[in-house]
Amino acid sequence: MKNEKAFLRDVQNERDERNVPIDMVGIRGLKYPIVVLDRANGRQRTVGTFDLFVDLPRDFRGTHMSRFVEVLDRHNNRITPRNMESILKDMREFLKADVAHINVFFPYFLRKSAPVSGISSYSSFECGFITRLNEGFDFILEVNVPVMTVCPCSKEISDRGAHNQRANAKVRIRMNSLVWIEEIIEIAETSASAPIFSLLKREDEKFITELSYDNPRFVEDLSREIVLRLEKDPRITWYRVEVASQESIHNHEAYACIEKRGI
Amino acid sequence: MKNEKAFLRDVQNERDERNVPIDMVGIRGLKYPIVVLDRANGRQRTVGTFDLFVDLPRDFRGTHMSRFVEVLDRHNNRITPRNMESILKDMREFLKADVAHINVFFPYFLRKSAPVSGISSYSSFECGFITRLNEGFDFILEVNVPVMTVCPCSKEISDRGAHNQRANAKVRIRMNSLVWIEEIIEIAETSASAPIFSLLKREDEKFITELSYDNPRFVEDLSREIVLRLEKDPRITWYRVEVASQESIHNHEAYACIEKRGI
Amino acid sequence: MKNEKAFLRDVQNERDERNVPIDMVGIRGLKYPIVVLDRANGRQRTVGTFDLFVDLPRDFRGTHMSRFVEVLDRHNNRITPRNMESILKDMREFLKADVAHINVFFPYFLRKSAPVSGISSYSSFECGFITRLNEGFDFILEVNVPVMTVCPCSKEISDRGAHNQRANAKVRIRMNSLVWIEEIIEIAETSASAPIFSLLKREDEKFITELSYDNPRFVEDLSREIVLRLEKDPRITWYRVEVASQESIHNHEAYACIEKRGI
Amino acid sequence: MKNEKAFLRDVQNERDERNVPIDMVGIRGLKYPIVVLDRANGRQRTVGTFDLFVDLPRDFRGTHMSRFVEVLDRHNNRITPRNMESILKDMREFLKADVAHINVFFPYFLRKSAPVSGISSYSSFECGFITRLNEGFDFILEVNVPVMTVCPCSKEISDRGAHNQRANAKVRIRMNSLVWIEEIIEIAETSASAPIFSLLKREDEKFITELSYDNPRFVEDLSREIVLRLEKDPRITWYRVEVASQESIHNHEAYACIEKRGI
Repeated sequence: MKNEKAFLRDVQNERDERNVPIDMVGIRGLKYPIVVLDRANGRQRTVGTFDLFVDLPRDFRGTHMSRFVEVLDRHNNRITPRNMESILKDMREFLKADVAHINVFFPYFLRKSAPVSGISSYSSFECGFITRLNEGFDFILEVNVPVMTVCPCSKEISDRGAHNQRANAKVRIRMNSLVWIEEIIEIAETSASAPIFSLLKREDEKFITELSYDNPRFVEDLSREIVLRLEKDPRITWYRVEVASQESIHNHEAYACIEKRGI
Repeated sequence: MKNEKAFLRDVQNERDERNVPIDMVGIRGLKYPIVVLDRANGRQRTVGTFDLFVDLPRDFRGTHMSRFVEVLDRHNNRITPRNMESILKDMREFLKADVAHINVFFPYFLRKSAPVSGISSYSSFECGFITRLNEGFDFILEVNVPVMTVCPCSKEISDRGAHNQRANAKVRIRMNSLVWIEEIIEIAETSASAPIFSLLKREDEKFITELSYDNPRFVEDLSREIVLRLEKDPRITWYRVEVASQESIHNHEAYACIEKRGI
Repeated sequence: MKNEKAFLRDVQNERDERNVPIDMVGIRGLKYPIVVLDRANGRQRTVGTFDLFVDLPRDFRGTHMSRFVEVLDRHNNRITPRNMESILKDMREFLKADVAHINVFFPYFLRKSAPVSGISSYSSFECGFITRLNEGFDFILEVNVPVMTVCPCSKEISDRGAHNQRANAKVRIRMNSLVWIEEIIEIAETSASAPIFSLLKREDEKFITELSYDNPRFVEDLSREIVLRLEKDPRITWYRVEVASQESIHNHEAYACIEKRGI
Repeated sequence: MKNEKAFLRDVQNERDERNVPIDMVGIRGLKYPIVVLDRANGRQRTVGTFDLFVDLPRDFRGTHMSRFVEVLDRHNNRITPRNMESILKDMREFLKADVAHINVFFPYFLRKSAPVSGISSYSSFECGFITRLNEGFDFILEVNVPVMTVCPCSKEISDRGAHNQRANAKVRIRMNSLVWIEEIIEIAETSASAPIFSLLKREDEKFITELSYDNPRFVEDLSREIVLRLEKDPRITWYRVEVASQESIHNHEAYACIEKRGI
């Protein structure tokens, strides 16, 4: 009779005597197809990697792991700043929890035109939503923007040339009104020595080389320039900016981090 | 006048005197949105990671890297066993090469139903096309299938229980007629101790646990079972099967590899 | 004359007018050979991956990246809980900073004997020191312990067998007196369903299989068991325990996290 | 009586009726401390990641996974071009196989002096031995050398500056007499636009910037320059050179590969 559902003991639901509440419990690294907002095209299909957690009070032995996937699946794979709170509410209710967390990371594609030839191609940006529902709803947008940095010191001290490299600007923000992924990309790209592209013709390569040489940036400069632009935007209530530059003269990265305080 | 296109010297096109032909030259790790064939739904949008190479004769200094992205972009992101040859032909022609290679890897999602409850969810499978156009057209399909393996030795020698774990079956095939990704997934899943799922209710977990315990498989067994099924399919002309099991009693993998000879 | 050192302008040292202090700036991902403390053998040579950061006041343009490596190199590669504070002091002084951070991660090897046969082999554990010198000195020890978990639910509801898998217990602690890496490993291993080994003979495999089957553990159980043991140790003033289990019936991880509050 | 060793059935040793020989079976991803040859210091302790495989005839069900670790452990962790054949022989004998494979990869550290200041620091290089014992003994040395490449096209067409980046030169060779890892590093570094270092003072940065600007290299150039040097060395009987450049103006790599034919 053990194989009938009515008799399958619910071990997770049993009383736990160890008296240790758990901060976060759930599943990590779930790949799921998702649909996200796209400023130019309305929506974009991509691939999400999910962490889904709740808290667990001291007197329960375990959470019900299958319910995380059920909740996610019910929402038809739509993942936007606008519906995350309702997914979290469902998760909290279905899992009988006080706090719910969803972190989702995904590649986001943007069609960009080369600066001189105008030829267009897709660029990919690793983005993420880091969210929590507790008393309030907390939503952090993460956008990683690959850019180019030319070293100001190398340029200044050298008779010719200047070392440069690809750098990643990881920008995390909290907002009180929708900020598009595309806006963060633009801020990071215009703060760097130059933006980068999947497809550049020779005249574009000349343009990007000269543009970057004319705008040398330490990781310190790039992080500060991004911060100055974020500070001016009243929709952005908090930020954390991390710049990591794949130094062409070293086998390690140069790194700078600035976080807004007081929130 | 240096900044007008007509005067931009084509350095890549210059004569090379070193007398060293290059086997493969191009771009690696390009992320691009793609559309692939889907047996149930016609097509599926996902994210491809591309290697695009050609050969380069001894007397040219360099290839034209931007053309790889142009060719790819022209084909509207459709990537199927049926149109890969024509993309390779375009690439070979546009790059003035004799040999063209495209390797593309992508997550592929399949909706699967749990074995008892019937509840459905997406599973993800890392797939790839490894292709080359030379005198002939060569196409290899790669499908990675995560499954469960129960150790036959552990089951036999132990009074109770048996160690088990997630394993990955990497199946590469050449074919003379279309074989669906879904067919390879089914072969690997039914050859394993048990298939795995993103979403299982308690009655499903009981079923999978017992099914796997009744079908213990070494990596040697799993690779052989897959091979026996591939051998029976007249569409499949070559295979390489690699099984790697994330041993639960060790911090390393158990591994087996079988390749069809004589092609 | 530009190529004589006296005339090389120090761009980093220039005054910055943007009025944005930087929280952390430095280098990331530097691989360096290190020597760490080993309870059994006095010391162990291994390979460290370093992050080295300081803060930067609002009125300086950049930090001096080369000095991070100079400071590290001066200390003869010895990296222990006992000398980290003095390395941080040197770094803070040489970089003229208020705050200095060093994070270093390294594989640590321990010779372990199989439980029945007694045959011995090396197991590797990814460890780390996360340190900061500000007004005070902060030192966090991180130890990752791979172990085995048998699912209590699967065991309870199934007529035979139980799914199990490798799990990682990531334990971070602050301490007021030296706690050995070996002690954290022992706590995590004895809290799990069973420890794991690089080398097990058949009689050991039988022992581990049965031991684990007799001690089923959810990620919730394992994290709580570790916490109960850490709580009893007066040398440990703070902890964060994260358990991630590579579920054999799913293609994602089960995860639990408990952090000590109030420090 | 089942728990006494004499009665533990040897499942692996049973006859297999499926008639499918296995090309490679064993363990993958084992981390083990090793000692390698060091030209300057005699020997160097580092961390190896091992694949250990043998073949398995059609009539055996499984191999004995524990014996791989036993063989490795017996050799006191010394891993050199000189003793690999005897480790493989032991493995082949102990596992009763015809073919044995060992692949081991490890970080190797070299103390290098900056070009102007002379200040010294460690650089790390990912190296590997790819070996097989069949009728003969096959040994491939792999050395990955991070270097700098300046784009010749960008330099030529731009009024100022030139994009550059870190590139990796992966060199694999077969030899008939010992070639040091240090010699391969030197060949790759002197073939590139410039070598790179963990620690450079300002005068060194100026030197490297100018040196690299004066020696622009496509990935095609760098791979060819390395090949020309390898071809001149009578100890080197085969090579495969792969160069991948982390393009600073793109978010993908430029890649070139040249392999010596006819061996």
